[in-house]
Amino acid sequence: MPRLRPSLDWLLVLVPVSIVLELAGGNELLIFLTAAGAILPLAGLIGRSTEQLALHTGPRVGGLINATFGNVTELVIAFFLILEDKTEIVKASLTGSIIGNLLLVLGLSFLLGGLKHEEQTYNARSASIHATSLVLAVTALLMPALFAHSQNTDTFIQREVVSGTVAAVLIVLYVAALVFTLVTHEHLFRTPSTDEHATWSRNRAVWILLAATALVALEAEFLVSSLEPALEDLGLSEFFVGLIVIPIIGNAAEHSSAIMFALRNKVDVTLEIAIGSSTQIALFVAPALVFISLFVGHPMDFVFSTFEVTAVALSTVLVFMISTDGRSNWLEGAQLTGAYVIMAVSFFFVEAL
Amino acid sequence: MPRLRPSLDWLLVLVPVSIVLELAGGNELLIFLTAAGAILPLAGLIGRSTEQLALHTGPRVGGLINATFGNVTELVIAFFLILEDKTEIVKASLTGSIIGNLLLVLGLSFLLGGLKHEEQTYNARSASIHATSLVLAVTALLMPALFAHSQNTDTFIQREVVSGTVAAVLIVLYVAALVFTLVTHEHLFRTPSTDEHATWSRNRAVWILLAATALVALEAEFLVSSLEPALEDLGLSEFFVGLIVIPIIGNAAEHSSAIMFALRNKVDVTLEIAIGSSTQIALFVAPALVFISLFVGHPMDFVFSTFEVTAVALSTVLVFMISTDGRSNWLEGAQLTGAYVIMAVSFFFVEAL
Amino acid sequence: MPRLRPSLDWLLVLVPVSIVLELAGGNELLIFLTAAGAILPLAGLIGRSTEQLALHTGPRVGGLINATFGNVTELVIAFFLILEDKTEIVKASLTGSIIGNLLLVLGLSFLLGGLKHEEQTYNARSASIHATSLVLAVTALLMPALFAHSQNTDTFIQREVVSGTVAAVLIVLYVAALVFTLVTHEHLFRTPSTDEHATWSRNRAVWILLAATALVALEAEFLVSSLEPALEDLGLSEFFVGLIVIPIIGNAAEHSSAIMFALRNKVDVTLEIAIGSSTQIALFVAPALVFISLFVGHPMDFVFSTFEVTAVALSTVLVFMISTDGRSNWLEGAQLTGAYVIMAVSFFFVEAL
Repeated sequence: MPRLRPSLDWLLVLVPVSIVLELAGGNELLIFLTAAGAILPLAGLIGRSTEQLALHTGPRVGGLINATFGNVTELVIAFFLILEDKTEIVKASLTGSIIGNLLLVLGLSFLLGGLKHEEQTYNARSASIHATSLVLAVTALLMPALFAHSQNTDTFIQREVVSGTVAAVLIVLYVAALVFTLVTHEHLFRTPSTDEHATWSRNRAVWILLAATALVALEAEFLVSSLEPALEDLGLSEFFVGLIVIPIIGNAAEHSSAIMFALRNKVDVTLEIAIGSSTQIALFVAPALVFISLFVGHPMDFVFSTFEVTAVALSTVLVFMISTDGRSNWLEGAQLTGAYVIMAVSFFFVEAL
Repeated sequence: MPRLRPSLDWLLVLVPVSIVLELAGGNELLIFLTAAGAILPLAGLIGRSTEQLALHTGPRVGGLINATFGNVTELVIAFFLILEDKTEIVKASLTGSIIGNLLLVLGLSFLLGGLKHEEQTYNARSASIHATSLVLAVTALLMPALFAHSQNTDTFIQREVVSGTVAAVLIVLYVAALVFTLVTHEHLFRTPSTDEHATWSRNRAVWILLAATALVALEAEFLVSSLEPALEDLGLSEFFVGLIVIPIIGNAAEHSSAIMFALRNKVDVTLEIAIGSSTQIALFVAPALVFISLFVGHPMDFVFSTFEVTAVALSTVLVFMISTDGRSNWLEGAQLTGAYVIMAVSFFFVEAL
Repeated sequence: MPRLRPSLDWLLVLVPVSIVLELAGGNELLIFLTAAGAILPLAGLIGRSTEQLALHTGPRVGGLINATFGNVTELVIAFFLILEDKTEIVKASLTGSIIGNLLLVLGLSFLLGGLKHEEQTYNARSASIHATSLVLAVTALLMPALFAHSQNTDTFIQREVVSGTVAAVLIVLYVAALVFTLVTHEHLFRTPSTDEHATWSRNRAVWILLAATALVALEAEFLVSSLEPALEDLGLSEFFVGLIVIPIIGNAAEHSSAIMFALRNKVDVTLEIAIGSSTQIALFVAPALVFISLFVGHPMDFVFSTFEVTAVALSTVLVFMISTDGRSNWLEGAQLTGAYVIMAVSFFFVEAL
């Protein structure tokens, strides 16, 4: 496995480098770049350790672990951003994470998997439940946005009541979907057992997973604190970084493992990682941040921009249309990836959402 | 049957109470509440009598009867509102009726039916035709709205020509769908015959249906005439009442019978009631009101707000995604209901559409 | 074949008439009408010669030829419009062409084919790939529009970079879809061979095709040059002509052959013509015009109006919902046609997009 991506592991050297730079009060742009660079191999480690864990626990629980630890980076970055009251960038990074997973991660997985295998199949049921969850997410993004944009007189309290209720409903439905897939209708989602064997012990996988996650959190903190000066040097807008750059860094873990599983023709795990991760961000991470932000005194509402809502809605429609038949091929991967490029270039010059 | 809902029938006592209050010129809020309360058991009676009729006529015609008499309340309330020139509330109540049927009625039916039965199946074809009709309705809502919102110079005549043509097209397509399902392709929509037997005679069912409908009309008139002072006392906005309160009262009939059929695992009838009712409102009741309103001299155009169009569009997408496979379960019910709650809370503080 | 449409061929007399009128500097309205009238039989000839060619080459390549030569008229009209810097009308005519093909051409084909045959079946895979391509087109229309409408400060350069990138992505994906259907996954799209035999030789079909195309180009030039004075006389807005009139004239070829194939129960060819033509306009003709327009010094960006994007999006959703099951009937045809009428009437009074 390491032989396949030799360059990535070398980037681990950026972990001590970024720590030294931070402690020495080095150049902010350098800190930003080394922190971003350090996250990539750590995400790779997270990917490999969750993959090993998945072999110990089975693909479904493995997918859940993957999604959870894949989103840890986003959650931590969002948390630090909220502490600095940059709630608009948090919302942009949540949006970017959803479309990044749905279009870029899934797209490249389908594309590369499809170039190796003529046609790949997966559980269409599972994809359909995720797609419905995503439409719920779109509903939850659209309605408060319409409310806020159509009323001139909405107050802070009104926004918070609407945001809080919507967030609570989403969390309830997220838990409901988990209960459905893992408890009441678990038999519908069983995947055939694999013949692969874990090369790491369960303990080793867990420890590497935890260590890598802790280091990702540290690097995430560096990333956020050096964000503003670094942006100025790079000439990138806050929104572009929120929508595109942070999610690409944050999703590197899902990215590498999703593609790996697609190449091995285990597209069910790929879907669980890519779509499952998006669902989790939309129905759990984002709503949870509404409450967390209230708790730490920097309230973030659930009112997203038209731009963000549209991007998520289009991604959802594309994924629904492409995944509803339980089959994938390289063209579908190219189409998803193409949609991502179209969005990214449209976001590039954006100065306000 | 009455034993299952003993409290609801007691509410019939509100029929004479509301009449006495109205004749005695009593408190408007009290008239509003008693009229609203009286409609619930009457709607229950309509539900039971149509259910009995359905056993005499078969599930499909029964579903049509259900949808027709379930929408009588909406039609009558809308008629009285138009007479008072409150066309914006009419449009809100039509919107609310569509999303109420699609999300709340269908959602609770799937949820409760799904808690009792692991998975329920129904005719996916029928659901698909309704869904396409709903997308047509969304088209018919969106295009005139875009026209009206994008032109600063549109005249009354232009709005009426656009509204009238769109309404005429919808009515033609509504009739076309009926011809398709009942005449030219009737064999596709046959459901297996039931083993239940009617406990009411056909005549008894018809008479109770007619009497309950007449009383619903009377109470609807009370409801509308006391609406404005009552709202002031309750502190609710006109739009919230139009979008949420009136439809819940007006749909109580569909609501109770749709759930009843879902619990008895006859989801085809549930769908015919819930989605069929929405289709009928969108493609027949709303367009008919355009012409009726012109006739009574209080013209209502077919230009709905962005908020309303979006809510109908999202509901349509959700129902399409959930019903396209011909299967339902409790999670899908919870998701539809959750979407309804999200919309309702977003509507709550709305002061202008 | 000519016996079926005797009146149409008589219109060929308008070819010399329009040429004489143009050379003699005749009345502009007359030139406009004779040019428009002359295009109809020429389009019919294109339809018949491509049909004959299709019998020589097989249905799929035949469908591609159909789509290509059906769009030649649009491409030429658009080219002359760009030379006169009327880029807004070009965009309107591209939009109108897409919705005309998806709703009117496909609608009438399904309607008339469905009245003759109870149910018609076709390759759902092929329809699904086209539908996904159309959603990509919607994405490509929506994102730059959102960008341009949300930023007050976007510059010419920014618009051109966004438009150019989006156009390039679409062309890449158009070619990718061709490679997929004609090369890597060609076996999925094979249709059973027909028992019909060509009545024209391959050479005769090619020569008639080329001659008719050349004359269409000539008439298209007359049409564009007489457009402005003719519109004033007819009292039609530029946008209505762009959205409705030009596409109906330009699509006459597809129109007649698509219906012909539907009547002969060869719906696969119908779909290839109608949806394939839309896909080609959205993913190839429109993007190509972005680059062509830049080259001839009258740059056209890829920023469409909300009205246009919505119309394309709704058409896409309708076609997706209707074609996803691989079956068609007269009701679906009526619904598509009805949606077209709703859009056309909404466009009728539009004075600005």
